[in-house]
Amino acid sequence: MQTKRKICVVVTARPSYSRVKTVLASIIKHKDLELQLVVAGSALIKRYGNAIKVMEDDGFKIDAKVYNVLEVENETAMAKTTSMAIMELSNVFYNLKPDAVLTIADRYETLGTSIAASYQNIPLIHLQGGEITGNIDEKVRHANTKLADIHLVSSEKAEERVIKMGENPKFVFNTGCPSLDLASKIEINTKLDFDPIARYGGVGSDLDISKGYLIVMQHPETNEYKNARKHISETLDVIRELKIPTLWFWPNVDAGSDGTSSGIRHYREEYDLNHVHFFKNMVPKDFLMLLNNSICLIGNSSAGIRECAFLGVKAVNIGKRQDGRDRGKNVIDVDYKKEEIKEAVLKFVNSERPGKDYLYGKGNSGEIIADILGRIDLPYSKILQY
Amino acid sequence: MQTKRKICVVVTARPSYSRVKTVLASIIKHKDLELQLVVAGSALIKRYGNAIKVMEDDGFKIDAKVYNVLEVENETAMAKTTSMAIMELSNVFYNLKPDAVLTIADRYETLGTSIAASYQNIPLIHLQGGEITGNIDEKVRHANTKLADIHLVSSEKAEERVIKMGENPKFVFNTGCPSLDLASKIEINTKLDFDPIARYGGVGSDLDISKGYLIVMQHPETNEYKNARKHISETLDVIRELKIPTLWFWPNVDAGSDGTSSGIRHYREEYDLNHVHFFKNMVPKDFLMLLNNSICLIGNSSAGIRECAFLGVKAVNIGKRQDGRDRGKNVIDVDYKKEEIKEAVLKFVNSERPGKDYLYGKGNSGEIIADILGRIDLPYSKILQY
Amino acid sequence: MQTKRKICVVVTARPSYSRVKTVLASIIKHKDLELQLVVAGSALIKRYGNAIKVMEDDGFKIDAKVYNVLEVENETAMAKTTSMAIMELSNVFYNLKPDAVLTIADRYETLGTSIAASYQNIPLIHLQGGEITGNIDEKVRHANTKLADIHLVSSEKAEERVIKMGENPKFVFNTGCPSLDLASKIEINTKLDFDPIARYGGVGSDLDISKGYLIVMQHPETNEYKNARKHISETLDVIRELKIPTLWFWPNVDAGSDGTSSGIRHYREEYDLNHVHFFKNMVPKDFLMLLNNSICLIGNSSAGIRECAFLGVKAVNIGKRQDGRDRGKNVIDVDYKKEEIKEAVLKFVNSERPGKDYLYGKGNSGEIIADILGRIDLPYSKILQY
Amino acid sequence: MQTKRKICVVVTARPSYSRVKTVLASIIKHKDLELQLVVAGSALIKRYGNAIKVMEDDGFKIDAKVYNVLEVENETAMAKTTSMAIMELSNVFYNLKPDAVLTIADRYETLGTSIAASYQNIPLIHLQGGEITGNIDEKVRHANTKLADIHLVSSEKAEERVIKMGENPKFVFNTGCPSLDLASKIEINTKLDFDPIARYGGVGSDLDISKGYLIVMQHPETNEYKNARKHISETLDVIRELKIPTLWFWPNVDAGSDGTSSGIRHYREEYDLNHVHFFKNMVPKDFLMLLNNSICLIGNSSAGIRECAFLGVKAVNIGKRQDGRDRGKNVIDVDYKKEEIKEAVLKFVNSERPGKDYLYGKGNSGEIIADILGRIDLPYSKILQY
Repeated sequence: MQTKRKICVVVTARPSYSRVKTVLASIIKHKDLELQLVVAGSALIKRYGNAIKVMEDDGFKIDAKVYNVLEVENETAMAKTTSMAIMELSNVFYNLKPDAVLTIADRYETLGTSIAASYQNIPLIHLQGGEITGNIDEKVRHANTKLADIHLVSSEKAEERVIKMGENPKFVFNTGCPSLDLASKIEINTKLDFDPIARYGGVGSDLDISKGYLIVMQHPETNEYKNARKHISETLDVIRELKIPTLWFWPNVDAGSDGTSSGIRHYREEYDLNHVHFFKNMVPKDFLMLLNNSICLIGNSSAGIRECAFLGVKAVNIGKRQDGRDRGKNVIDVDYKKEEIKEAVLKFVNSERPGKDYLYGKGNSGEIIADILGRIDLPYSKILQY
Repeated sequence: MQTKRKICVVVTARPSYSRVKTVLASIIKHKDLELQLVVAGSALIKRYGNAIKVMEDDGFKIDAKVYNVLEVENETAMAKTTSMAIMELSNVFYNLKPDAVLTIADRYETLGTSIAASYQNIPLIHLQGGEITGNIDEKVRHANTKLADIHLVSSEKAEERVIKMGENPKFVFNTGCPSLDLASKIEINTKLDFDPIARYGGVGSDLDISKGYLIVMQHPETNEYKNARKHISETLDVIRELKIPTLWFWPNVDAGSDGTSSGIRHYREEYDLNHVHFFKNMVPKDFLMLLNNSICLIGNSSAGIRECAFLGVKAVNIGKRQDGRDRGKNVIDVDYKKEEIKEAVLKFVNSERPGKDYLYGKGNSGEIIADILGRIDLPYSKILQY
Repeated sequence: MQTKRKICVVVTARPSYSRVKTVLASIIKHKDLELQLVVAGSALIKRYGNAIKVMEDDGFKIDAKVYNVLEVENETAMAKTTSMAIMELSNVFYNLKPDAVLTIADRYETLGTSIAASYQNIPLIHLQGGEITGNIDEKVRHANTKLADIHLVSSEKAEERVIKMGENPKFVFNTGCPSLDLASKIEINTKLDFDPIARYGGVGSDLDISKGYLIVMQHPETNEYKNARKHISETLDVIRELKIPTLWFWPNVDAGSDGTSSGIRHYREEYDLNHVHFFKNMVPKDFLMLLNNSICLIGNSSAGIRECAFLGVKAVNIGKRQDGRDRGKNVIDVDYKKEEIKEAVLKFVNSERPGKDYLYGKGNSGEIIADILGRIDLPYSKILQY
Repeated sequence: MQTKRKICVVVTARPSYSRVKTVLASIIKHKDLELQLVVAGSALIKRYGNAIKVMEDDGFKIDAKVYNVLEVENETAMAKTTSMAIMELSNVFYNLKPDAVLTIADRYETLGTSIAASYQNIPLIHLQGGEITGNIDEKVRHANTKLADIHLVSSEKAEERVIKMGENPKFVFNTGCPSLDLASKIEINTKLDFDPIARYGGVGSDLDISKGYLIVMQHPETNEYKNARKHISETLDVIRELKIPTLWFWPNVDAGSDGTSSGIRHYREEYDLNHVHFFKNMVPKDFLMLLNNSICLIGNSSAGIRECAFLGVKAVNIGKRQDGRDRGKNVIDVDYKKEEIKEAVLKFVNSERPGKDYLYGKGNSGEIIADILGRIDLPYSKILQY
């Protein structure tokens, strides 16, 4: 009897889970693959969205949990959290004996996954290399590429870049972005069929969102976390002045997210924000439904670049966090400046909805990826291609 | 008053020290630079050559020591040792507050230095990127490149490769290899002026090396450490049969080095090797003198590729460890096979000495590097150049 | 010239600082002693009171900071945080080379201090051994005693117990509790001379406390952190019903403190608590002034047992957290039951103030301790005394 | 159906395994118990005896391996190795979910086991508390007692001491020492039935031991590891001069064992020791057989105190390492002085064999312990008993 190929996926944060959910499901479904699911980092922590709970509710079985988030408000924490990730994950891999490990994108702790796998000669698969963002994520992403043996990228430009960096084209695959798979069943005319406040609680006033609403999702910029509070204030000012009902999502854990979070808390205490409601986390499908029916997304989340392009939803993208990512026609780029943000939102309020844009795949990336992982060779050694 | 720029160099192994010795000295001499010297890993451990002792004897002041070598005989140790390096070095950098950190080449734990620095937004300088070797070092070296802001490379080809990988040409400098600086005062006709056994002890028989001798320096191949013992046996067989006086240097600490070490010990117990003497460590200058007067170097050390090219000394390079490194005319490449090794050595015994080859610099790299570090910008953020 | 004896004190939490503040000051003043001050754990974290800021404002120079708090909501975090403490502190002690290390009381991470010191043969001084509380603190405290060479205890009973445990009476000193030194200038009739809300902000309604007020300080019970939310609810119910102005202090970081904190937050959203104001931290002197003028302290803080006895302030002590600590006549012990708590508070509202009780020292413990540390032998080895 | 009680035993060194081997076997045999076996520390390392191999050869199934030995030649290593033990074991216990954890005796890293268990509210069983030795082991042993809930001690005096330290007599059991169980089938007149050199290899000359032989087993003293080399030289001198065939066992890993080991290696190179043979490890049964037929044991191993008493074998006990352990009439205590050691050995050479002494149990401790663990309550909280 043939044993299945064991693919170990390490999920370290709420947004990473959304990105790979359909990959996980497709691996489980694939006849020759077996999923080993490891949950680590902020994905285990309630105040950052309790992703583990969502995963369990979605029916995924967790093979190992890794507690590694250090509680400090400075950059040292990122290094030490990564150190702890290596320490624990090297043990986890030693015991699970996967045939390959999959590391996701570019969060700082993902390099911990990559080291723990590659140093133990386990074939390493990297999801979403070849993109450009311009901060510590940039360094982490490309370092992941250099440790990885197999590359699953999200767009043509990303594919080109990974190959240019000297990776073997035979192991670079443009699969589209699996986070869009969740959006593939949502058509432009799908209507919102639930009340987000009733379903998710959160804090803030009760809102009437039937006449349109904004969504805000703004994270600190990694290399400028000391400006996190100033950055968030610009957006808060805009939202306060516009008085349009707004659904606001809390940021991820990161050096600086406390600046962002405390900025929001402080602002709420000072000002009347009773047209705003704050959420911590949401089942991805519900989030996409909300996005699909919103006036626009405001902030610096990658959702504005990818999901919004796919759904045909307008996005005001603030700052440099998404710099270098390929953009569809749905995006207006602005700086962390109140006036620029406000002008862009107002422009969107009165404009037509852009069409769908398949820049990042067609919504079946999970299956494409499982298919690839089921049939390719899994090397754990490589050489620069020039 | 202008304060000096603080350059923190992390030395983690005996051969890394030899590589940067003149860089350290040149930084100290430079009027605008201050050296912060951190010693870690196997450089602190007696049975791997006690590099710390040599450094102190050379007059260097150590700013911090980091104990991070885990004692295990498997690949997990490499991951965990790197984890410990991050944990400790992030603290060290937090306290020393360097203006830039220099990480050396491609040993697995150097990625720990790179993460601890780059995650804390400290400009990272990488020495000797852009080379090709074909095992875990390959992955580590290029991941270091991707985390680093400034690149000091050793040859034209290396320069080309680092730029091709998407690094900003403005921050890539071909400085030559500083390990050759130590060799710059040794002319082809410089005679051996000391007795290595009298000076360094070591184990094995007393030897008459006045009529010619071989040098062996063979490390385990990282991705094949289970073959370490078999690999070393091939070389041991050759040396036993040739009966030429031989100076043999113990390997570095690495997964697999115990296979190599125990292979040697076992062999010594079984066979008569009384024309061989074993050494642990040697002041680099003395090692170079020995090299300069030897028949040839046998093994897989980078010394065969660099130092031997510069000195004009013949080298039998075994296996894949140095694959992809540019070679001078002094090298014969062979496999881990007794016959091939023996044939190459015998060919060398009767051949002329090749001339000097400046492929890896002219012997003043330390000064060149200090000069660069004294005048360039020190960024800590970058973006892929395509 | 005689060098000073270096005493290294490791402060890991806000309440630990309050406990040793006068010890630190007395060591600095002592002609033969030099203070090495290390700050670690939750003492470095804003949301647990930012003790480091208070210490710096008080003029103390910090010699090293140790980031070691793992962010997890389960008991594993306590073990891992302690592991990180050992890792970092062993380095800190290695570099600071103290003549003795002082570890404080019984928080779980203090055992990290004790291991890092005793395993490196550094004489270990333990403050406040010999007490009884009945949860994980109990185990930690006595394990600290067993690793320590010198014992500074707070009461006669504690002295007896430490000696009974087999420690050498020659190295057991009843110094009283230094936390009371801060209270030594506050007389029973000293009036409140500041407005706590104006000075410290905090959250909640503005209060008129001129006609009397309660203070609440309730931490989770370590071995029952799953009940933390239920426990805090009982107290919240009492406060809500009594409608007496109340100053409420947030709990320390501990497994379970999130249960306590979230219980409080949730309750505030559901109920009208506009006679309650919440504080994070306070300069100890101000806290003592507030205590001195309150109707009573409610909760399970050791302040009810020690400071309140010394000041002559009434205290409702809830649950088992302070079990086994010697009590003055100022305390009523109750269970985590609304009725019992309420009854005790009401009894206090109408009763006379008890007199001062010198059970835990006379308010000059800091000086007594510095004097002892300046003159005794500092052994680092010992043997059970039976 | 009743599930079995899961008892997790953590073995961290070769001698610890010998101590608990029959406990492990008895737990497996007990109808209501299930064994969870964790192997850590030097028990995983070849050059310290490869205990893991012996355990597997004995048929034990290992549930988890924990790599935590730091390679450093100073005391910091002991603290960091313990830190790593906590880090890893807290994970292991989190996943294995044992009903109780058993920690063995007093090696420094055993405190890591104790913290990982007790901080997670897992009932902790301590084997061999209440003894006295007078170095860091002394502190570790009693700290283990203070973290433990259940105490299995080896002698009446140990029982008395643990109770005196304030432990609840209800949870203190004098079970005898299980290491003696292995000796229970060896009668005084059992003859040696194998050739140790043929069976175990080792290094050194071939010996004729038919006319009597000595056994040496000498470890460094923890608090004086800088004297390790001097200490071992005294013994080496005695053995060299006596010229009696000698079987010598290498020391455990410990700060200082490198002093001991290198002392031995150096001595062998300088002197002719062709009546001595060196062994790394041995199946315990074979070791006991050798002991039973030897002239005497020389060194500072606990085997001289326990196994030798039980078997009725003479022992020269050197130095302070076994101070405070109850002694039978088979022991002569001497200092690390050549003359004293030699005199004691010569006295033994010509004396009668002492009788068996049941000071440390009757050879059925494993069964007694399993029986206790099967029936008692398993608390995880306690309070000082005075």
